[in-house]
Amino acid sequence: MKKKVVNIAIIGLGNIGSYLYRYIEKNISIIKKKTNVTPNILFVSAKNYKKKRSLNIPKKMWLKNYLDATTNKNIDIIIELIGGAEGPAKKLVFSALKNKKHVITANKALIAKHGDQLAKIAENNKVNLEYEAAVCGGVPIIRSLKEGLIANKINRVHGIFNGTSNFVLSSMEKKLISFNEALTNAKKLGYAESNPLSDLNGDDVASKLKIISALCFNTFISKDINIEGIKNISKRDIINANILGYKIKLLGFAEKIGNKLYQRVHPTFVDKKSYIASVEGVLNAVIIDGEPVGKNVIQGEGAGPAPTTSALISDLSSILRGNIKYPFNISNKERRKINTDSIFNLFFSSYIRLEVRDVQGVLSNITKIFAKNKVSIKRLIQNPNKNKKQASIIIITHKSKDLLLNNTLKQISKNKYIIKKPILIRIESGQ
Amino acid sequence: MKKKVVNIAIIGLGNIGSYLYRYIEKNISIIKKKTNVTPNILFVSAKNYKKKRSLNIPKKMWLKNYLDATTNKNIDIIIELIGGAEGPAKKLVFSALKNKKHVITANKALIAKHGDQLAKIAENNKVNLEYEAAVCGGVPIIRSLKEGLIANKINRVHGIFNGTSNFVLSSMEKKLISFNEALTNAKKLGYAESNPLSDLNGDDVASKLKIISALCFNTFISKDINIEGIKNISKRDIINANILGYKIKLLGFAEKIGNKLYQRVHPTFVDKKSYIASVEGVLNAVIIDGEPVGKNVIQGEGAGPAPTTSALISDLSSILRGNIKYPFNISNKERRKINTDSIFNLFFSSYIRLEVRDVQGVLSNITKIFAKNKVSIKRLIQNPNKNKKQASIIIITHKSKDLLLNNTLKQISKNKYIIKKPILIRIESGQ
Repeated sequence: MKKKVVNIAIIGLGNIGSYLYRYIEKNISIIKKKTNVTPNILFVSAKNYKKKRSLNIPKKMWLKNYLDATTNKNIDIIIELIGGAEGPAKKLVFSALKNKKHVITANKALIAKHGDQLAKIAENNKVNLEYEAAVCGGVPIIRSLKEGLIANKINRVHGIFNGTSNFVLSSMEKKLISFNEALTNAKKLGYAESNPLSDLNGDDVASKLKIISALCFNTFISKDINIEGIKNISKRDIINANILGYKIKLLGFAEKIGNKLYQRVHPTFVDKKSYIASVEGVLNAVIIDGEPVGKNVIQGEGAGPAPTTSALISDLSSILRGNIKYPFNISNKERRKINTDSIFNLFFSSYIRLEVRDVQGVLSNITKIFAKNKVSIKRLIQNPNKNKKQASIIIITHKSKDLLLNNTLKQISKNKYIIKKPILIRIESGQ
Repeated sequence: MKKKVVNIAIIGLGNIGSYLYRYIEKNISIIKKKTNVTPNILFVSAKNYKKKRSLNIPKKMWLKNYLDATTNKNIDIIIELIGGAEGPAKKLVFSALKNKKHVITANKALIAKHGDQLAKIAENNKVNLEYEAAVCGGVPIIRSLKEGLIANKINRVHGIFNGTSNFVLSSMEKKLISFNEALTNAKKLGYAESNPLSDLNGDDVASKLKIISALCFNTFISKDINIEGIKNISKRDIINANILGYKIKLLGFAEKIGNKLYQRVHPTFVDKKSYIASVEGVLNAVIIDGEPVGKNVIQGEGAGPAPTTSALISDLSSILRGNIKYPFNISNKERRKINTDSIFNLFFSSYIRLEVRDVQGVLSNITKIFAKNKVSIKRLIQNPNKNKKQASIIIITHKSKDLLLNNTLKQISKNKYIIKKPILIRIESGQ
């Protein structure tokens, strides 16, 4: 930047906003050394103006109307930490960019929903729209894609994008406890919010994946994504996975096959000895397959005020250094729509668990339905539970079209011998 | 950059130079889309001008004297791919920076030796000196430290910085073969050079570590570094490690403890289940401990033309975007000397293997020397080999001062019952 002092407004002073405020106040001198510009927090704003905070912010710094930051002539950069795809956050960011303010946001829902439109405004007005903190907190994936890995034609991105669900699955596996027990623990430890729905149903992963996908494949954000969460994973599946040499992870995948883009989020069997299986607890990890770089892995803490602040400051420093880049790496005019295709047309070896009444002819009927759908069985284990006259049937299939796998289960489900909704977990072989 | 076309000279056309040449020629349009500047290779030069190459480079592009690139008015960027800390590479880079040309280099030896001096000239002349490709090839560690992780106060960096030695250790462990067998394999597969000395004796790791260390701790390149290679690691140590729950990795560490910098390279016992143990073959991995980000891991291919080109293009794109930064992240005037201290003053739990004549009183004498040096023994296993009247004694020590560990071994070595030089491998506990 040509300016020697750059004025910042921080809007939203929750855990992250407060941490960031303190970090900037403490580190003005080192930021200046690295960027040649002094960052100066001129204004803050938050929902409850009079709420008691541990921060000691002078009264004159408080904006009563947060939107005033977008029109104030002295403000150069607005950091949006409100959250949510709509409402105040949306108003703030649109208004800021329209008024030629640089924007830094940690808001994945906003970028996943309105990112294309926002990027257009930012590009036209020659200001930055930075969102490193929106994707995997302290994992510097966005900047790596824009800088360190810029040379690469990306073929595939996948990984663990949600710490809460990874913590739940990890502790189910380590302590052999149920989903609900693991979730209760996670809440106690502060690793799950009181309403962790979007963390567990895959929506949070989907938002991050859509953003990364647009960036990797020089395309627009696509809503066409298959999403499955981890609610249906039971302790029994964790145990079965272990016996078969796997762990269960909630993974997100974005890959270009032929000319088509496939985006999917689902629990996945991964080889126990693979790298991704070693990523435990609240960690996030992103694996990039690119040419010429080959396979690259970036791993770190995906959430929390400290890692998120690391991401926000990397965005801030990039702006201070005057590094104005297209929000999605290339101009909007150069981004191209890519046709998407459904997970149904991909091929997976899969784990299937069927809970059945242990009556005659069940196995014959099940295997017939598999054969009819051309899904061939690689391994079958039937564990009877004679007390209850029930049995658990575990099937590992050969690679089969996902549509056929799903059709098979649908047809099997219609039979009276089925006690519970069948479980289907895809196996990732290429780890 | 303000220019729309930027002229490049590539000096050195070995595997990497040739790959890079082809990459740029093929990807001009996408580089332009990402940087708004067209990269144009104006000149090339290489040792043997008439050597047959698969590249079809027009005659007029060949410089007969490579140094002419540094004074040619049309050249903006010089990419140095000659290699070596002295001689032509040194001449080229010094001359280029003095003549206000941006420089990109893959030369770790040069940067580790002359990086401070070169950085000063680059800063004074307001040109870039970029060296992502000098450290861990396709692992974008330099740019991550300068961009994605810029917010962080780094406390410690460690990892696997050399693919050849990691391949040798991995295959010794997987195939239970000797060091020499593993090395022969590595050469056959192209993972080890015909003279792999600096890969195996730790020097290559040391060069990379020194560079990263200067960058992480805002200091100058320090030659004070403890270096041990892997030549003395035998199949027996690999087997012992496995029995005890460890793998052996050649690791580099740079850490600030108190006000002192500790730099060290040595084979290390790491927990079998740790992340770093899972990094196999020719992969490199860097683990950064920083505040506020926590622990960050970056993993990828550390060598070879393709990953190295990924790094070179990230440097090139950074220059094309006009992102002039201090080569070591802050101005030379702001870099501060940090006092270094020796590995001798650090504390390690260690694995020790003693090969002894199986005569009476040996164990008593050994344990006495340990006690005298205040090194306490956590575990001791004596495996006799009665045919030869020899025994192998394996000792795991409690955490002890490295100096005392070494003194203990020195004193033990003086005894006649010692057949071979004792083996000491430090154990990394904090993985």
